Amino acid sequence: MGPYSIGVDLGGTNLRAAAVGEDGKVLERVSVPVNYHAGPLQVVNEIVEAIRKVRDRVDRGLLRGVGIGVPGFIDIEAGLVIGSANLPGFNNFPVRDEIQKDLGIPIILENDANAAALGEKWIGAGQDVKDLILLTLGTGIGGGVITDGKILHGSHGMAGEFGHMTVFPDGNPCGCGNNGCLEKHASATAIAAMGRMMHFGQEINTAEDVYLLAVAGNERACRIFEAMGRALGIALASLINAFNFPLYLLSGGPLPAWNFFAPSMLAEVRKRSFTFARTGTRIEKALLGADAGLLGAAYLPLQQTQAREAVTQ
Amino acid sequence: MGPYSIGVDLGGTNLRAAAVGEDGKVLERVSVPVNYHAGPLQVVNEIVEAIRKVRDRVDRGLLRGVGIGVPGFIDIEAGLVIGSANLPGFNNFPVRDEIQKDLGIPIILENDANAAALGEKWIGAGQDVKDLILLTLGTGIGGGVITDGKILHGSHGMAGEFGHMTVFPDGNPCGCGNNGCLEKHASATAIAAMGRMMHFGQEINTAEDVYLLAVAGNERACRIFEAMGRALGIALASLINAFNFPLYLLSGGPLPAWNFFAPSMLAEVRKRSFTFARTGTRIEKALLGADAGLLGAAYLPLQQTQAREAVTQ
Repeated sequence: MGPYSIGVDLGGTNLRAAAVGEDGKVLERVSVPVNYHAGPLQVVNEIVEAIRKVRDRVDRGLLRGVGIGVPGFIDIEAGLVIGSANLPGFNNFPVRDEIQKDLGIPIILENDANAAALGEKWIGAGQDVKDLILLTLGTGIGGGVITDGKILHGSHGMAGEFGHMTVFPDGNPCGCGNNGCLEKHASATAIAAMGRMMHFGQEINTAEDVYLLAVAGNERACRIFEAMGRALGIALASLINAFNFPLYLLSGGPLPAWNFFAPSMLAEVRKRSFTFARTGTRIEKALLGADAGLLGAAYLPLQQTQAREAVTQ
Repeated sequence: MGPYSIGVDLGGTNLRAAAVGEDGKVLERVSVPVNYHAGPLQVVNEIVEAIRKVRDRVDRGLLRGVGIGVPGFIDIEAGLVIGSANLPGFNNFPVRDEIQKDLGIPIILENDANAAALGEKWIGAGQDVKDLILLTLGTGIGGGVITDGKILHGSHGMAGEFGHMTVFPDGNPCGCGNNGCLEKHASATAIAAMGRMMHFGQEINTAEDVYLLAVAGNERACRIFEAMGRALGIALASLINAFNFPLYLLSGGPLPAWNFFAPSMLAEVRKRSFTFARTGTRIEKALLGADAGLLGAAYLPLQQTQAREAVTQ
């Protein structure tokens, strides 16, 4: 057994932990239900428990450390959650140190979308590049930026807030106070909302309901994905003009509708970015699905070890 | 005399070269008229001549190298200009190697807006941060991204093309094929064009003409800067949401009109970026003016030396 690390993903209803080898292979994994309303101390206990469980199952490898993807803003240096809608009571709670105290191994906290972007870079759709951007389409739209193989954090760990890029200056109002935020026009939530406005003669609860109508040939459902693709394309073009990265990945629930939204998305990007039109810039599907954040979190301690070894060589 | 380097700036009508110490102090400088239509070989000779002139005037210091800021896309590795509207006939011409051959010292080519951003980081408005974005407002709008103290190039040296970010999806048409590019709503050219549409009863040739009207209290001229500020604010908000850098700098001809465009610009940014509204993110004037690119170019060899020394220590 060679060295390995453990990644943790704090999902909406389940806490997942996986032991991952240096080659990216998952050695062991657990998934347990979690109640974030039980408070940080209880949740920390459950995280420690899950980590112990996978560690105990791995046979005598060297554990490099633990990476934890958290849905919220993180103070990486301090190991604190500084803001999270999904983790009530966690603000300024010393998550990292509490877990480290119990386990005695190095812990790295990271935003979950950043971890997902890193996972795709490591063993997903971005293995062949050093710079990429991931957009995660879900209830909102988040994402992460990888440059020179590492996560770009920005000054408050808030880089990659692509969901609040303005695509239509007078577009749909957003809870953040803005109008025309990308996520009000292109998230799974936005697709469902557009579906409900269409009076399809059936109840629309999710983006998938709209997708199934599109698959069945409903033209108005197809137009929803066209509109969503246009909004995505406007934002992607601006990102390509600003970053000039070689690869932009999309992940999340609406991905199966790729064939419905990609044509309008790509048409907008071609029109709005000469960098895209003139270079081999790629816009593609992410590959790791719901495991991206878990694997990216596991990679964090491995990457740190590599960086240390590169310096001492 | 300590070590120094030489920066070169290929301006519209003049070629400038300056010898700069490690503390950022300009030791010597020359400025000579240049005709880019004379072809790359002739221009290279003039660059070499200018470099020799400042070098000969500096008294026995150690010359670390030469950095050259070029208005166009650069292949940094190969030392080629791969596209420039201002340098006809330079495409794929081995500028770096030709100059190096003549001088026998290391030459670094860089995009001029990137060099300007680096200059501001080194000894301008960005000395206290490691990450910043510079937007240069001129005929068009260009810019540069500095992350962890270094220029972000992107995969084709085309990062920082902020002028072609879409701010109004159905806005003014742009030569690039898009509608609503930032530079069609917020460059010096755009200000002058809006001025000409206003029928002020006097000839409007430049953004400065509009500025002078605003200074004289003309309300319609003020509204032009308000509109320009709104467009800038929309783009800046998206950049802040994507990068979460602590500092965004503006430079260029329209800067004296700051008090006319900044209020609407900042109102848009506050509305459209909760990162801006909730953190100490700064939007400020650049400090180095027309010297930013020259000084940033000079810093390139010094930065390379520092990086080498950091590794070998």
